[in-house]
Amino acid sequence: MNAPVDPIALLDAEDPLRHFRDQFTIRDGLIYLDGNSLGMLPKRTVARMSETITQEWGEGLITSWLGADWVNSPRRIGDKIGRLIGAQPGEVIAGESTSINIFKALTAALSLQEGRHVLLSETTNFPTDNYMMQGLARFSGGTLSTREVAPEDVLGALDDTVAVLLLTQVHYKTARIRDMREVTRKAHEAGVLVVWDLSHSAGAIEVDLTDANADFAVGCGYKFLNGGPGAPAYLYAAKRHHGAHPVLSGWFGHARPFDFEGQFEAANGIDRFQCGTPPVLGMNALEEGVDLILEADMAALRKKSVALSELFVTLVAERCGEFGFEFICPANSAERGSQVAFAHPNAYEMMQALKAREVIGDFRAPNVMRFGLTPLYTSFADIAEAVERLRTICVEREWDRPEYRERAAVT
Amino acid sequence: MNAPVDPIALLDAEDPLRHFRDQFTIRDGLIYLDGNSLGMLPKRTVARMSETITQEWGEGLITSWLGADWVNSPRRIGDKIGRLIGAQPGEVIAGESTSINIFKALTAALSLQEGRHVLLSETTNFPTDNYMMQGLARFSGGTLSTREVAPEDVLGALDDTVAVLLLTQVHYKTARIRDMREVTRKAHEAGVLVVWDLSHSAGAIEVDLTDANADFAVGCGYKFLNGGPGAPAYLYAAKRHHGAHPVLSGWFGHARPFDFEGQFEAANGIDRFQCGTPPVLGMNALEEGVDLILEADMAALRKKSVALSELFVTLVAERCGEFGFEFICPANSAERGSQVAFAHPNAYEMMQALKAREVIGDFRAPNVMRFGLTPLYTSFADIAEAVERLRTICVEREWDRPEYRERAAVT
Repeated sequence: MNAPVDPIALLDAEDPLRHFRDQFTIRDGLIYLDGNSLGMLPKRTVARMSETITQEWGEGLITSWLGADWVNSPRRIGDKIGRLIGAQPGEVIAGESTSINIFKALTAALSLQEGRHVLLSETTNFPTDNYMMQGLARFSGGTLSTREVAPEDVLGALDDTVAVLLLTQVHYKTARIRDMREVTRKAHEAGVLVVWDLSHSAGAIEVDLTDANADFAVGCGYKFLNGGPGAPAYLYAAKRHHGAHPVLSGWFGHARPFDFEGQFEAANGIDRFQCGTPPVLGMNALEEGVDLILEADMAALRKKSVALSELFVTLVAERCGEFGFEFICPANSAERGSQVAFAHPNAYEMMQALKAREVIGDFRAPNVMRFGLTPLYTSFADIAEAVERLRTICVEREWDRPEYRERAAVT
Repeated sequence: MNAPVDPIALLDAEDPLRHFRDQFTIRDGLIYLDGNSLGMLPKRTVARMSETITQEWGEGLITSWLGADWVNSPRRIGDKIGRLIGAQPGEVIAGESTSINIFKALTAALSLQEGRHVLLSETTNFPTDNYMMQGLARFSGGTLSTREVAPEDVLGALDDTVAVLLLTQVHYKTARIRDMREVTRKAHEAGVLVVWDLSHSAGAIEVDLTDANADFAVGCGYKFLNGGPGAPAYLYAAKRHHGAHPVLSGWFGHARPFDFEGQFEAANGIDRFQCGTPPVLGMNALEEGVDLILEADMAALRKKSVALSELFVTLVAERCGEFGFEFICPANSAERGSQVAFAHPNAYEMMQALKAREVIGDFRAPNVMRFGLTPLYTSFADIAEAVERLRTICVEREWDRPEYRERAAVT
């Protein structure tokens, strides 16, 4: 006679990615469902940073720009990220923040779009994306303007005044996946260039920029790429747009940066999208995270991500059905990225109570609890246990304690 | 009877800053005269980065944004840098590259200068400064223009079309110090705002932005501040200009970044000059470098810097006088920053030969050998020995070897 089988344990035992969990330091008891805000620390990053700091900086000093290949890190790491998002070699550059890269992509696209003046996005886009558009329009003194419409009205707002459409592929709150290929096709029909924000896509879902005929894209290094807090971001520009001119023309974007010439002459290729000196510590940490995810099969990652989110949704319905959680993500997993989110009037307090029980997710204003699923290290047992702790918090009304009502900045 | 005294050894023995050298790991035999390209690794930074990576990121994860005060690092470190440059608390923010900060300062100044359209600088300014101006002017499509004049013609070029003057206080090649107070006064008389680049000033010479009535300033974290390769830079904005609008309006510059509002509303105070998520690894490394230099007396640092450069110039004249070195810095040490530079037809090859003899300086195109003097760790013995090795290279014509002629990118 066989022992009774725990179906959750079986899911973990059969998970082809389960050995990746050992590549991260995970404290016993902690259930970390926030890898889409800040990915965990890969063990290998500790050794790499020690080498970068002690040997490369401490011993090699200035000679490490060549000797440790610091000077090529933006292209080298960019190409690695490119493999995760279906870019060709020489189409991705790592560096700066996502916000700065959005600005570069927007202005580069504008340099190719004479006679068009509208920057289009959806109202519910991740705030910094639209803030960068707004700052640009404000600076133009009326030459450029923003048009921000409801998510469902984006395609209808494409017309011959629109220069650039800025969209996030996987929505930061609802996890809704935009059809990158179809949106790009319709935008191109209207003469519009598209800038895709892949912050919640890369390393989480399969992305193919080449297949989508994408123009520009940007993304974040500190979420699913596990690059560390405030990691450098990245920018993609299709080869056909390498004649574009981003406004931020710093010395690392020059054709001959170390000749110290007086006049800016943009480098050929993706290098023209560089600006200042690369942030070496952040770059090398990012590379370890990217190298690790490149060892995993992206299709397997996506399959596990879907299974994790399906389990989460099923268990919340079964175990917490009476507590009023509204699932705000697409019901069809094919339209959903690697996170689940629920609206609840007490979302903030509940997230605090979960944190006290060592379940880390994100509160997103005004009333959303968001849980990131990182198939490299999230287990099925994590999901089952998180839902049980959520149930306890609801049953015992633990969230209704004064200390959980205090608000503090959360990123 | 006393033993004969070595005058160089005496200088080191009497140096009140000599104990700071022990705060850095310095390989035996290495003479590092390139702290103005990349400062050395402070020993304390190794421990701080280990803590940042293993504890703050690895264990604290997302909670470290508050728990380890990551979220305030731009202001916290900015205020510390402010103490080195005579700023008031709340006037300096750390983050991004120098190039990006130049762009922010230029556009912020422009937002205060309606009706003026010229961006003024000198032709020999550090390239990235002028490149950023050029990119901005190009993007404006004719609304803005650059005016780049010879160093001695800057003041004469101030007129009522000029919106912003962008100057570097200590010239990156000649070490010439601009009189910040006097230039600012004359610019203000002409209605012009000034952006000072302090990359070669902060931590090397005494700077007093408040006394100079400065408007905006930027500077580099990886030179005399010893913040590490590609360290975050910083931006200063005088309190009276905190109503200005930099174009780069990312979420960290929002009044309420974590409320995820749709419309950008600039934060009050210096925070509006933030843009993307702060690069935490780089920030914490920078803080150690800044903390270390804050322990030293700035007047003593400057005094030693002058003594080091005077010794260098004297010894080159005495020991290498016949080999055709042209000293290109101001002869008066009061007008010279913390570096010395010599033009020589074989500057490139000589710098390679020096490197082979473990003397690290910088070649700056087309024909300049530049030696940075970092009073925190450069000793008088370093200078004497560097000049002896330079003499050997000249006497033996070591520089005239084929392998020293090969050119490679040097930063």
